[in-house]
Amino acid sequence: MKEKMKEGEIFLLYGDEKANYLVKYEKNKEIHTHKGKIILPEKLSYGDKIFSSKNFPFYVLYPETSYLSMKVKRKTTIVYPKDAGFIILNLGIKSGDKVLEVGTGSGAFTIILSNAVGENGIVYSFEKRKDFLENAKENFEKFSKFKNVMFYNMDLEKEIVPDIEVDAIFIDVPEPWKLIGNLKKVLKSGKGLASISPNIEQIKKTKEELVFEKFVRIRIYEIILREILVREEGTRPKEYSITHTGYLIFANKVNE
Amino acid sequence: MKEKMKEGEIFLLYGDEKANYLVKYEKNKEIHTHKGKIILPEKLSYGDKIFSSKNFPFYVLYPETSYLSMKVKRKTTIVYPKDAGFIILNLGIKSGDKVLEVGTGSGAFTIILSNAVGENGIVYSFEKRKDFLENAKENFEKFSKFKNVMFYNMDLEKEIVPDIEVDAIFIDVPEPWKLIGNLKKVLKSGKGLASISPNIEQIKKTKEELVFEKFVRIRIYEIILREILVREEGTRPKEYSITHTGYLIFANKVNE
Amino acid sequence: MKEKMKEGEIFLLYGDEKANYLVKYEKNKEIHTHKGKIILPEKLSYGDKIFSSKNFPFYVLYPETSYLSMKVKRKTTIVYPKDAGFIILNLGIKSGDKVLEVGTGSGAFTIILSNAVGENGIVYSFEKRKDFLENAKENFEKFSKFKNVMFYNMDLEKEIVPDIEVDAIFIDVPEPWKLIGNLKKVLKSGKGLASISPNIEQIKKTKEELVFEKFVRIRIYEIILREILVREEGTRPKEYSITHTGYLIFANKVNE
Amino acid sequence: MKEKMKEGEIFLLYGDEKANYLVKYEKNKEIHTHKGKIILPEKLSYGDKIFSSKNFPFYVLYPETSYLSMKVKRKTTIVYPKDAGFIILNLGIKSGDKVLEVGTGSGAFTIILSNAVGENGIVYSFEKRKDFLENAKENFEKFSKFKNVMFYNMDLEKEIVPDIEVDAIFIDVPEPWKLIGNLKKVLKSGKGLASISPNIEQIKKTKEELVFEKFVRIRIYEIILREILVREEGTRPKEYSITHTGYLIFANKVNE
Repeated sequence: MKEKMKEGEIFLLYGDEKANYLVKYEKNKEIHTHKGKIILPEKLSYGDKIFSSKNFPFYVLYPETSYLSMKVKRKTTIVYPKDAGFIILNLGIKSGDKVLEVGTGSGAFTIILSNAVGENGIVYSFEKRKDFLENAKENFEKFSKFKNVMFYNMDLEKEIVPDIEVDAIFIDVPEPWKLIGNLKKVLKSGKGLASISPNIEQIKKTKEELVFEKFVRIRIYEIILREILVREEGTRPKEYSITHTGYLIFANKVNE
Repeated sequence: MKEKMKEGEIFLLYGDEKANYLVKYEKNKEIHTHKGKIILPEKLSYGDKIFSSKNFPFYVLYPETSYLSMKVKRKTTIVYPKDAGFIILNLGIKSGDKVLEVGTGSGAFTIILSNAVGENGIVYSFEKRKDFLENAKENFEKFSKFKNVMFYNMDLEKEIVPDIEVDAIFIDVPEPWKLIGNLKKVLKSGKGLASISPNIEQIKKTKEELVFEKFVRIRIYEIILREILVREEGTRPKEYSITHTGYLIFANKVNE
Repeated sequence: MKEKMKEGEIFLLYGDEKANYLVKYEKNKEIHTHKGKIILPEKLSYGDKIFSSKNFPFYVLYPETSYLSMKVKRKTTIVYPKDAGFIILNLGIKSGDKVLEVGTGSGAFTIILSNAVGENGIVYSFEKRKDFLENAKENFEKFSKFKNVMFYNMDLEKEIVPDIEVDAIFIDVPEPWKLIGNLKKVLKSGKGLASISPNIEQIKKTKEELVFEKFVRIRIYEIILREILVREEGTRPKEYSITHTGYLIFANKVNE
Repeated sequence: MKEKMKEGEIFLLYGDEKANYLVKYEKNKEIHTHKGKIILPEKLSYGDKIFSSKNFPFYVLYPETSYLSMKVKRKTTIVYPKDAGFIILNLGIKSGDKVLEVGTGSGAFTIILSNAVGENGIVYSFEKRKDFLENAKENFEKFSKFKNVMFYNMDLEKEIVPDIEVDAIFIDVPEPWKLIGNLKKVLKSGKGLASISPNIEQIKKTKEELVFEKFVRIRIYEIILREILVREEGTRPKEYSITHTGYLIFANKVNE
């Protein structure tokens, strides 16, 4: 049940909550941490325990989707796992689906979408800023399990969306309302569109546009994540945390 | 881009937030709602609008994963979408994975897992109560897109888990700590286990057992969902809602 | 340390979370509850235990400010204790202060203000609807400890505020922005005004008006109350609750 | 309506959310801020606007109770206004009451209690650590409006509480359960006791002791404060904040 690590594989080297890293496996590679130096051994398996030069234990773990998405090199804000999981389920995204995302940003959510639709699915990911897209592609290539994403360096406010057909649309841009008319035509009737925005005014404008474009079943949510600390000295929520990322809006397309 | 409905397909008939139903399509079928009677037409496509006898509009929508999971016939409490999506991402469950779930309960999360791993994946779902399992199977057969679930009527507190190997484990039983020793051996090293419990004492006991079984990277969370109402008269969170479902605990297996 | 109850006094008759009542003491009075009939004895002291005809214990307690405020006869929504306490402290209201409130509503917050400023203080309470004011006065007379409230049946949108001078202003009306210009002149320079509104648009308009009227140090908050259940079977937040009452806005008046 | 400032008075010098200070008024005093130097003029009134040497406006405001309580010199954690206001109302503390507090800590809540009970009330405040008490007294003397607090350097775990009688008790120590038996006898029958603790285990032990001491109507709460930012670019909750201070427990004393 132990799986051998191959050269070039990316794993999660976990010391503790503050000392944990995504590492590309190379024999004898040295990793410097504030808990001491680690030298990767010639043979390494998932689940292994390695000690640092200061004798702290580190563990070799699989980096799960949420961890990967948080570790992308960020040139933009990203979609957090608390929101991402809820979006996937509320768009009904499943293995094999074709989905459209705009903008790609740093690619955090692209990785999540890629894992959700798998090898039989396709993610069409649009980003107007070339520098963001290059960074997102690098993040994706490093972290992806599936080769199922098509990246487009396009501004969908100005350019017509390609002639595709998708099961779900996710929008993460500052002015989502400007894209809905364009995007609508590639979404299958009866299926869902979602958008995330930090400010409530953006959500209100998006809602207005969705109503104008005859979308129905409009729903708006906010998700609050609380980390709970269970420790020797007692159990309580974390005392200082992220308290807001964005509001989520969902709607379904219907025939006119 | 409109998709024809086939006889026997299950769709979401949406009038408004309070009048919405999962319906199995049959020509000329009558549906009685408090907004009037609806007769399903001979030809129906996703996205279509139908009027009730009282002239209220209803829409023919795809029921997404989260909606389906909330509409199972319940014999137990279920895992809510706000928690389910976060679990999927924090277990790193992706298309093609093999995952283990215990207990099946009403099958709400089974449907979500099934959609996440797709046709190349497998869900092993264990439930000790036969009546729960029968109900869950019915729910699953009605709502599933993939035939990728193997149901087991077994009590994993007493019976040895079959000789399988999985990428993730999810536990939803009153005493999860009693199962961890048994389940551990089928989980791939370095991968994750999650459990949900309504009470903090359950989480503390589960954590103790995870520590005893040498799991690492233990994390505990609570997720709060707020629905935001954007209406003519103004924007505000819903005034009365579900305020607690459960605490989530995550951990990774390592080699001893 | 036991205090005798006098005829006519109002006490809290507490059976459990669901069976608790404000009762005016009269000897031999009969009280009918779903836990049986209670006959008030000839001699009664605070802290006493009385048994109902079905042998359930009831306790004779002091009704504290928050309990009283929740038990007013309601003709309007009220200010909840979670918000009220925060308002008192953020307006710096203390014993002896003069404060202005508009609208009186059902008088829940009037009782709280009255207790906060005490016998050396004054509460000026304005309400434009006569029926609301009559109800509020009745609530206040029943529950108040101090005779320190002056009620005004006035519409401060149209009528000039009387020539008074106050240490704090609290507004609870649907369109607070229409009152600020009128109210401003009775507030001492450097002191605070607060307003509560269910919708964020109301808060935004109020903020705009406060800026227009040269108020400074504008702060906006929402307070979420979670009840925690500690029981035999475990500890967790209540599962279903009030999730939103209103947004609070605070500001200070300065000299122009 | 402008009030002249007297020498030695403490006011709130407010530049913006990040530049605001409690200042003791002395003519020609220089105050150095990152927004430039301010020289206090010969005549100063509440509500006045002063410009710094870098031409930033500062305002002369009354420091309200919640602001003062947050600005005490801290040698301990303090009770935050979101919790303090709720405690006051749920203990029914009003002008003229006699209340007991243990431990004094840094005196933040002592100032709040002092303002709540006013000149006809008394606050008995107990602290076992002399250094904490000295600091709290200094804070109190600087910020208080009323001379109504009696400080005791006593350890109520070991020493018998003095022969007083109070309307309410508030406990803020690491092991509140050790004090309840001692404190109980000074609380009027039918009235309330409250305690705050960061961890849920402390609350559970406190509850057990309250049950053992025959207290009734035990209630436990947590209060979450969200600051809402209303700005040009949009409206949203603050993104990073304090997410937990403590759990609150309340109960009433009855006759045995």
